[in-house]
Amino acid sequence: MNRKKVFYTLGQLLLLEAVLFLLPTLVGIIYKENTALHFIISAAIAAAVGGTLMIVCRKRNDVIYAKEGFAIVSLSWLALSAVGALPFFLSHEIPSYVDAFFETVSGFTTTGASVVKNVEALSHGMLFWRSFTHWIGGMGVLVFIMAIIPSVSDRSIHIMRAEVPGPIVGKLVPRAKDTARVLYLIYIGLTAIEVIMLLFGGMTLFESLIHSFGTAGTGGFGIRADSIGSYSPYCQWVITAFMIVFSLNFNLYYLLLIRRLKSVLKNLELWVFLGVFLASVATIAVNIYSIYGNVGDSVRYSAFQVASIISTSGFSTVDFNLWPGLSKAILIILMFFGGCAGSTAGGLKCSRIILLGKMFRNELRHLLSPKSVNTVKIDGKQVDSSVLKNASNYFALYIFIFVIIFLLLSFEPFSFETNFTATAACFNNVGPGLDAVGPASSFAAYSPFSKIVLSFAMLLGRLELFPMILLFSPRLWKTK
Amino acid sequence: MNRKKVFYTLGQLLLLEAVLFLLPTLVGIIYKENTALHFIISAAIAAAVGGTLMIVCRKRNDVIYAKEGFAIVSLSWLALSAVGALPFFLSHEIPSYVDAFFETVSGFTTTGASVVKNVEALSHGMLFWRSFTHWIGGMGVLVFIMAIIPSVSDRSIHIMRAEVPGPIVGKLVPRAKDTARVLYLIYIGLTAIEVIMLLFGGMTLFESLIHSFGTAGTGGFGIRADSIGSYSPYCQWVITAFMIVFSLNFNLYYLLLIRRLKSVLKNLELWVFLGVFLASVATIAVNIYSIYGNVGDSVRYSAFQVASIISTSGFSTVDFNLWPGLSKAILIILMFFGGCAGSTAGGLKCSRIILLGKMFRNELRHLLSPKSVNTVKIDGKQVDSSVLKNASNYFALYIFIFVIIFLLLSFEPFSFETNFTATAACFNNVGPGLDAVGPASSFAAYSPFSKIVLSFAMLLGRLELFPMILLFSPRLWKTK
Repeated sequence: MNRKKVFYTLGQLLLLEAVLFLLPTLVGIIYKENTALHFIISAAIAAAVGGTLMIVCRKRNDVIYAKEGFAIVSLSWLALSAVGALPFFLSHEIPSYVDAFFETVSGFTTTGASVVKNVEALSHGMLFWRSFTHWIGGMGVLVFIMAIIPSVSDRSIHIMRAEVPGPIVGKLVPRAKDTARVLYLIYIGLTAIEVIMLLFGGMTLFESLIHSFGTAGTGGFGIRADSIGSYSPYCQWVITAFMIVFSLNFNLYYLLLIRRLKSVLKNLELWVFLGVFLASVATIAVNIYSIYGNVGDSVRYSAFQVASIISTSGFSTVDFNLWPGLSKAILIILMFFGGCAGSTAGGLKCSRIILLGKMFRNELRHLLSPKSVNTVKIDGKQVDSSVLKNASNYFALYIFIFVIIFLLLSFEPFSFETNFTATAACFNNVGPGLDAVGPASSFAAYSPFSKIVLSFAMLLGRLELFPMILLFSPRLWKTK
Repeated sequence: MNRKKVFYTLGQLLLLEAVLFLLPTLVGIIYKENTALHFIISAAIAAAVGGTLMIVCRKRNDVIYAKEGFAIVSLSWLALSAVGALPFFLSHEIPSYVDAFFETVSGFTTTGASVVKNVEALSHGMLFWRSFTHWIGGMGVLVFIMAIIPSVSDRSIHIMRAEVPGPIVGKLVPRAKDTARVLYLIYIGLTAIEVIMLLFGGMTLFESLIHSFGTAGTGGFGIRADSIGSYSPYCQWVITAFMIVFSLNFNLYYLLLIRRLKSVLKNLELWVFLGVFLASVATIAVNIYSIYGNVGDSVRYSAFQVASIISTSGFSTVDFNLWPGLSKAILIILMFFGGCAGSTAGGLKCSRIILLGKMFRNELRHLLSPKSVNTVKIDGKQVDSSVLKNASNYFALYIFIFVIIFLLLSFEPFSFETNFTATAACFNNVGPGLDAVGPASSFAAYSPFSKIVLSFAMLLGRLELFPMILLFSPRLWKTK
């Protein structure tokens, strides 16, 4: 591994984080909170560490291969989280460093699982930083690093491979850096539209920004104990719509921009995703009708919660932990389903499920007619057999790792439902689970050991397994 | 599909079942129970239906391909269960036909999940028939059909493909029929040894037979409310040992018979299986030590329960539902793990897990060194890429179907733990689950709809998915 290049890049990222700390500092100053000081101290530490890394590793060569790509991605998420946790810890708003780390990992991975028991007691500066990590994490180190690494060669595709959610990297424009810029602009544009629409709904600018950050990153940190529950139905519907918007493949928005509407409408993943969304909304609305007694509320609560879970955001408007078993079962399954490939959502991703479904159909057909041709087509194009193999191997590995995390968590004295959904909610980057980690509770009761396990679960899920696993491989660290 | 051949074979099997009914009739006569009558009536019905099918379909041709193989396997399990349920229903010992069907499917699939609330109230005849279905089901329709179908051509390998548990069909001897006979003899021999060893432990002949049937088929139906709990430690250890014996690959016993000990010792699956078994026993023994307060009991309870779950038998000596979360988590995971390929155990099978583990390792290696060669070896032999593909596709399909069954079950008002483990216990052919379907409870509380769903789950798991799924494919039923 080209260690100097890796650590030099980490240094650059930490310097950038130092700059990013200035935004919550500003929020602290506006609201006359003394948390501003803790952000400045954190920024100084980030700058010092980042600067040191850059100076020590300045005699680098810029060659990066797969190894370096994986190392940069996994280490940068770890480093940004470790330093990003400082303000919470220094200000004593989250007194334990492990808790602060968990909260920051949850932010950057756009999970939204929280250890804060009373979120309304946090200062404005901390609330802003917490949600801002969602927004930064949202488009991931992909865009982040693309804007920094001066490489314009095709080598940077290695980082994309390690980073882009979903099985298919859609090359929008020929050069990786330009792709990143396009995605970045779409991301900012959509966020801005949501902010404006929430302002129209009567939210303050602060509230609009917080909730737009949480929606754009499909994160889910809020500022009230009841999440979005006490906001107007208009605001709830706006957030519902944008949670769906941010879980669709961003390539589609690019195609819309260049007026290729036909290609958008032919996208199978889009229709399957919307179909699963609507079917789940309808089923749950019927299932919870007896609780709320009217169609309007049932549909609104159902649509909000399904959008929140399938997009892996994790906002809530009601305590869905009290819903009947069928509704909860659907929500648990949707946690794993996740959004579309090429979005900010977590989970397995719709396109992978489609691929697996088509493979199953082929396999069954093949059993009956062994001479039948065995190819899978998506959107009219034949899918390469290596992509199919990767999809089913990824799925198997996903379940294996889920089982290991769940096993590590089972030292806790909580119910099966609590530990299972805590694992599912963190690993799929959703946020809240059920029972003792339901939307009305927090992850505070878990031991420090379990919080570290769950932090890793969030990183594993967000980075699509491989970068985090390879971090433990001696082969990765070997220099030539 | 060659329907006449399929239904002719079903007819033969029902005639055989009529003959098998004579054994519990004899038991009923010995114990002077009037249940003997219900077995004779059931035998008459089986003979009438079977005979009719054979006469109607007598002008058959004997050509069978994959389609016919799948149809024979899935339909024969259904037909044997539907007719096998008659004695329970006719005698009113299980008054509902759906319940009787569930119990019989549970028997033939060697699951051991029961809807009988008070097993001690059943007559000796019914108890014998219940456990005898385990023994018949144990080696499966494989041996069953092999002894009947007069075909000696290689075509019968189609049935093996649809039937043999595990990914690898080990061809012991060149001809399928001879293979079946060898397995059959090993099965009978091992059962006889267990009967004798249990007789030495003070069990009556009736008890020894019942529990040997349940162990050999890795089924788990017992005759007491506390399963094996009130038998002596000696008997518990004997059953522990034989549960492991019957979850090893039967090829190993054949290799022992022909004195190829070296081949046995080189078998990777054997060592991985024993390693997982011992590691689980040790962990659980430590975890439950504080409950029982001495090493001997903790190890015995732990070893028995781990053997019972990993072999997918489902006997119990204590109510493991009261064990700590870690022990229960391990047991839930072992339900899916299952025994070795080529055994009577259910679950995913150890060899599949090994294959997947090796594939993961290869894939990770490949990511770091894209030029590395990508082959998987087991026991020194290179594994064909189609076998690897099948293993990961099978795993993915297994999880998908698990999710669907769980979703269908979630209409029930039970806890997540209950529904999840009920699905796992039936689908993996284990028997008891946790919480409301724990070893001290039964499946009686489920609705008839859920009982039918779970019956299908048992059949899907036992027949390794495909034969049961293909039953719903119009392509299967098409005649040329």
